Amino acid sequence: MSRTVVHRVLVQFGDCDPAGIVFFPNFLRWMDASSLNFFRACGVPPWRELTHSRGIVGTPVLEIGTRFMQSATYGETLEIHTSVEEWRNKTFRHRHVVKRGDDVLCEGTEVRAFVARDEAGGRLRAMTIPEDIRALCR
Amino acid sequence: MSRTVVHRVLVQFGDCDPAGIVFFPNFLRWMDASSLNFFRACGVPPWRELTHSRGIVGTPVLEIGTRFMQSATYGETLEIHTSVEEWRNKTFRHRHVVKRGDDVLCEGTEVRAFVARDEAGGRLRAMTIPEDIRALCR
Amino acid sequence: MSRTVVHRVLVQFGDCDPAGIVFFPNFLRWMDASSLNFFRACGVPPWRELTHSRGIVGTPVLEIGTRFMQSATYGETLEIHTSVEEWRNKTFRHRHVVKRGDDVLCEGTEVRAFVARDEAGGRLRAMTIPEDIRALCR
Amino acid sequence: MSRTVVHRVLVQFGDCDPAGIVFFPNFLRWMDASSLNFFRACGVPPWRELTHSRGIVGTPVLEIGTRFMQSATYGETLEIHTSVEEWRNKTFRHRHVVKRGDDVLCEGTEVRAFVARDEAGGRLRAMTIPEDIRALCR
Repeated sequence: MSRTVVHRVLVQFGDCDPAGIVFFPNFLRWMDASSLNFFRACGVPPWRELTHSRGIVGTPVLEIGTRFMQSATYGETLEIHTSVEEWRNKTFRHRHVVKRGDDVLCEGTEVRAFVARDEAGGRLRAMTIPEDIRALCR
Repeated sequence: MSRTVVHRVLVQFGDCDPAGIVFFPNFLRWMDASSLNFFRACGVPPWRELTHSRGIVGTPVLEIGTRFMQSATYGETLEIHTSVEEWRNKTFRHRHVVKRGDDVLCEGTEVRAFVARDEAGGRLRAMTIPEDIRALCR
Repeated sequence: MSRTVVHRVLVQFGDCDPAGIVFFPNFLRWMDASSLNFFRACGVPPWRELTHSRGIVGTPVLEIGTRFMQSATYGETLEIHTSVEEWRNKTFRHRHVVKRGDDVLCEGTEVRAFVARDEAGGRLRAMTIPEDIRALCR
Repeated sequence: MSRTVVHRVLVQFGDCDPAGIVFFPNFLRWMDASSLNFFRACGVPPWRELTHSRGIVGTPVLEIGTRFMQSATYGETLEIHTSVEEWRNKTFRHRHVVKRGDDVLCEGTEVRAFVARDEAGGRLRAMTIPEDIRALCR
């Protein structure tokens, strides 16, 4: 069973749309922040450092699926519960559950790849997930 | 067969992240813009007017699923091809295909509900999709 | 002397641009959040409540001036020190100082008006700043 | 007299806040896009290319000053009229005027520096504005 790391977000006025509720792409933005927070909490260095030391640029998403059950508005504090559901060779799948107190507002998965920039500093390509990074996240 | 409406986006520097590619929640932002553009192109008034005239606040998303095949960067022009795949009683499903020239960068679906604000001006609730609006979109 | 309220922000990957530093409009976004945080910390209800109870929609900006001295990047925690430098009849001037530890990254002012929506629910107009709200912020 | 380049923006639903008007940091985002559009229209290559060929990372802002006269909402098309008011050795000052038809919604200035990344690929530093780039923008 993977560990779960919680990322807290205070919803801002500017995160909300003319209907007065969170503009939904912001939930994806917060899930992305929660993914990075997950790796940092597990002891993985920031991508900035890994870019220099090992060429690892980050973990872009390949696929997302999200269900929105309840809306949220500014002034509310949300908790994003993030874990890794599955590790594959070059990709992994996150699970994010966004809660306000005991209410689940939305939940979703992200499939992400570990990518490196090739030697010429050009194109990004998927890489085998380093075993030491995977071990940190258990 | 539903009509398809194309929404064009010029990717900006500020839409891209430290890896130099579009920060993925922006694709969802553009799909949202393309949804609104679809209804406007079909002759549906802006939600702002429908809020006043008929209490219709907009079409919040209930569910999204998106696959990202290729990245994009600033200076590139993208085309979002948007249609309605299915109409149900209170919800409908959009299909969005994001292209750069002939390349498909990402594609996804959105299930959205038509929502109204109740009489007290308070909570949002799903409503039967008005037949006249549905007719405009055929 | 006005009170100063501090708002903390953890810079996210998606807040940064291809140069690897915070995309500057995000600093304005955080100053806006810090303005709202200031009023909430002073005991002023959220605009959402004041819209219903007193027609007060919020405090849109009329003028901003900001100097950027140092950049920031993701993983860093910033503190925004916010105060009210001057109260006028319908407007006030915020001062925001954005710090990372002891370093000042940027600082700026915002002139904002208190606005209400007129009876017809239409246009926004500036209003005399309510004395009770001003008193809360001293 | 500097040339003026016009950048068009269609305001989106997600650009607006619970008051139904453009969330003001978006105006700064659009001015930034208009700055880049200005250089591209003058024939300056994208920063991405200049980073590789000449180490020029971009033109981060040092100072902004903006006055907001009228609000805007989604569905409206804005024009940002951008020019360079003054060239100095390492910095220049943009003037942006945001119009909707004949109405001026906001206007402002940006002081920006040309910056390069030093040899070690580390810190950003201001550089003398290349004469060939300045010549293109006249």
